[in-house]
Amino acid sequence: MSDLTHLDERGAARMVDVSDKDVTTRTATARGTVLLSAEAVAALRDDTLPKGDALAVARIAGIQAAKRTPDLIPLCHPLPISAVRVDLEIVDEGVHVEAAVRTTSRTGVEMEALTAVTVCALTVIDMTKAIDKHAVITDVRVAAKSGGRSGDWSEG
Amino acid sequence: MSDLTHLDERGAARMVDVSDKDVTTRTATARGTVLLSAEAVAALRDDTLPKGDALAVARIAGIQAAKRTPDLIPLCHPLPISAVRVDLEIVDEGVHVEAAVRTTSRTGVEMEALTAVTVCALTVIDMTKAIDKHAVITDVRVAAKSGGRSGDWSEG
Amino acid sequence: MSDLTHLDERGAARMVDVSDKDVTTRTATARGTVLLSAEAVAALRDDTLPKGDALAVARIAGIQAAKRTPDLIPLCHPLPISAVRVDLEIVDEGVHVEAAVRTTSRTGVEMEALTAVTVCALTVIDMTKAIDKHAVITDVRVAAKSGGRSGDWSEG
Amino acid sequence: MSDLTHLDERGAARMVDVSDKDVTTRTATARGTVLLSAEAVAALRDDTLPKGDALAVARIAGIQAAKRTPDLIPLCHPLPISAVRVDLEIVDEGVHVEAAVRTTSRTGVEMEALTAVTVCALTVIDMTKAIDKHAVITDVRVAAKSGGRSGDWSEG
Amino acid sequence: MSDLTHLDERGAARMVDVSDKDVTTRTATARGTVLLSAEAVAALRDDTLPKGDALAVARIAGIQAAKRTPDLIPLCHPLPISAVRVDLEIVDEGVHVEAAVRTTSRTGVEMEALTAVTVCALTVIDMTKAIDKHAVITDVRVAAKSGGRSGDWSEG
Amino acid sequence: MSDLTHLDERGAARMVDVSDKDVTTRTATARGTVLLSAEAVAALRDDTLPKGDALAVARIAGIQAAKRTPDLIPLCHPLPISAVRVDLEIVDEGVHVEAAVRTTSRTGVEMEALTAVTVCALTVIDMTKAIDKHAVITDVRVAAKSGGRSGDWSEG
Repeated sequence: MSDLTHLDERGAARMVDVSDKDVTTRTATARGTVLLSAEAVAALRDDTLPKGDALAVARIAGIQAAKRTPDLIPLCHPLPISAVRVDLEIVDEGVHVEAAVRTTSRTGVEMEALTAVTVCALTVIDMTKAIDKHAVITDVRVAAKSGGRSGDWSEG
Repeated sequence: MSDLTHLDERGAARMVDVSDKDVTTRTATARGTVLLSAEAVAALRDDTLPKGDALAVARIAGIQAAKRTPDLIPLCHPLPISAVRVDLEIVDEGVHVEAAVRTTSRTGVEMEALTAVTVCALTVIDMTKAIDKHAVITDVRVAAKSGGRSGDWSEG
Repeated sequence: MSDLTHLDERGAARMVDVSDKDVTTRTATARGTVLLSAEAVAALRDDTLPKGDALAVARIAGIQAAKRTPDLIPLCHPLPISAVRVDLEIVDEGVHVEAAVRTTSRTGVEMEALTAVTVCALTVIDMTKAIDKHAVITDVRVAAKSGGRSGDWSEG
Repeated sequence: MSDLTHLDERGAARMVDVSDKDVTTRTATARGTVLLSAEAVAALRDDTLPKGDALAVARIAGIQAAKRTPDLIPLCHPLPISAVRVDLEIVDEGVHVEAAVRTTSRTGVEMEALTAVTVCALTVIDMTKAIDKHAVITDVRVAAKSGGRSGDWSEG
Repeated sequence: MSDLTHLDERGAARMVDVSDKDVTTRTATARGTVLLSAEAVAALRDDTLPKGDALAVARIAGIQAAKRTPDLIPLCHPLPISAVRVDLEIVDEGVHVEAAVRTTSRTGVEMEALTAVTVCALTVIDMTKAIDKHAVITDVRVAAKSGGRSGDWSEG
Repeated sequence: MSDLTHLDERGAARMVDVSDKDVTTRTATARGTVLLSAEAVAALRDDTLPKGDALAVARIAGIQAAKRTPDLIPLCHPLPISAVRVDLEIVDEGVHVEAAVRTTSRTGVEMEALTAVTVCALTVIDMTKAIDKHAVITDVRVAAKSGGRSGDWSEG
């Protein structure tokens, strides 16, 4: 039998049964970075006038993507997201992205948080691609989770 | 005025007008890596029995995500994708992902290729997350493009 | 800090945390009107033969749009809709639309009812646009709500 | 009044109110067959090399379609699916498809199971259509259900 | 190498490249039947009062499903549909469904026509399931196609 | 026969055939207003700090909704949008919304522009609903169009 829980004993993909798991409040935080050229970072930093939408577009794309996770990741369970926060911080090397997602459900929201970070990062690249054709998404990972049977943890 | 072409002169987001651009065949290739534990890599390598779906799920998720790009990235133009190929290679450190997308349209498909790579990578993490809670998506970038006004290029 | 609850203290959009709110049955009713030319009203009134689909298309579009609300309104929470009713009444000035939505959830369904009314109204315009290019959607608002912490109310 | 519960007393479509129904665990199994030419069956049977994706694509399409049911069937209620399994068996006459869906919710998942079977079957046709232009989907029906007020049953 | 054109030489799924195919007008017609109990047929036949929406819901679901085909069938190409017609005929044994789809594009619309028929048929089952739990979808197939390299044909 | 072009001679809904219409550049502009309380207008006007996302969320929702039009309006044709601009202006009585959409296609984009305006307006209501439960969407209509057989026009 496979150690991959999404495959059955014959190797066939399935959406695993979570109907016996407890409905509890679960949170997950994911992080990642978009590496950008100095010129692209400067263009984003210039966006300090009222209502400059550059980071807002990426933030909203990330929030919406969290809701789309079961549509994008074939074996993810649909679940009622109760909160999403996506933060972007412009740094010298590019943009740090952090997404925090919360649910009261039978499964965790790590995939939702990771999906929010990556789609937010993709949107940052789309916003800056006329300036920098060599942007790189890097270091996307779960940074913390709480709730559920496997216990709480966060990176050091 | 902003250097960010997706913002107008007041900083407001817009979908830029491409109606004057030529309809030509355009391709883009993107790459990225999912870093996994040795245990998770071993589980994926074990998946050599007929019809083991682990990589197939991720490949199909990537192909479908390419078609969803304008739904995910707010300012991307909808376009008729004419081909998508997503390759996964299991290596000692994890999984390399490469996606190639083609269109005959007024805009390029770099965002489609990047979206295919990242959603494929997210699905690899979803498949292995019961074994490895510390997977990392890294080094996602455009590797080559052709067609369109800005010319062809590929990484060295 | 902002009075706009969808923005945090720095002005950044977020999906507000509803995980501490009670799961209760909540309903909302919204109304609106499509103003049409006498000629377009006559064409809709003519649609009295068995199975004439004109109003059915608009009613179904409204019901389906209620389910799509979290996909359309970026900061809306996904929630399990338990009932939707959309009524259209042809009057001399055009079409009155009313939508009633019910859920058992942590947030209200005012946005779902408003979305059902507006998409239904848009579909009425699409059905009649070959006859009347000057249709107007007007007076779309929440008419009643019940359930949830802010209490019940309805327009006089 | 109509015997069709999805229509009100005037014949208008509505999403029926399920808010008074119990939240219980409900399952449904559906089955169907794709009739294929001997040549198409042989091509699918040949697909025995590691990672041949033909059946995987159809299986994943079926799993994802179960999640899309309320988007496809206008009067279906959205509900949190807790498990989906889609099995394909290649037989001499074509491919047998079986889908089993589980939820803990106020309504049953017969439509979700039927949707998974039909979209899986459509994908089998798409995979083989270059070889066989005359594939037929046949005998799609609910084979068993459990949970909910109307009691358990399965075909003999 | 596989005869299944959707798989590459290693068995991996891909969206095949159609960029060299001609843009021409292509049509496809598909048919299918929902077998229903006499009681369910009678309930549908009763629906003769003005605006009875039973068949309209199914027809509209079919039309919309044609547009969703590339979202449902993983390796289908997105294409601009230029016309869809879905007809339902109530007969003694149930409901006959026929869908005709047209495009001006690089690929045919057989899958779009089949998807329209099956989703329409699923919606008929959803409309009648309170009366008849044993409905069966049968005999879904392409009945005619025109345009494209493989020539025109229709069933006898 | 019906004057409603979306219905056939028996009253059945259909997506009308546009395959004989010319592919030309077509634009449409739509406008509408959200009436808000003085308190809600003040809260939006306060949003002058850098990156305050209130209007950005609504603008982006409108842009994305334009792309979703064929998914929302059952008989609308899918088409390749080449530009979308959504402007919001805060006035004493609320918010004016204007959307301009462009395509190079066989059909016009009036419905896309109207959909962008209404979803943008719905999002303004969602942003302000904690302050003002009595917001009203009013005066949503097409303000100008160009391209296509029926000629150019704009409101006086």
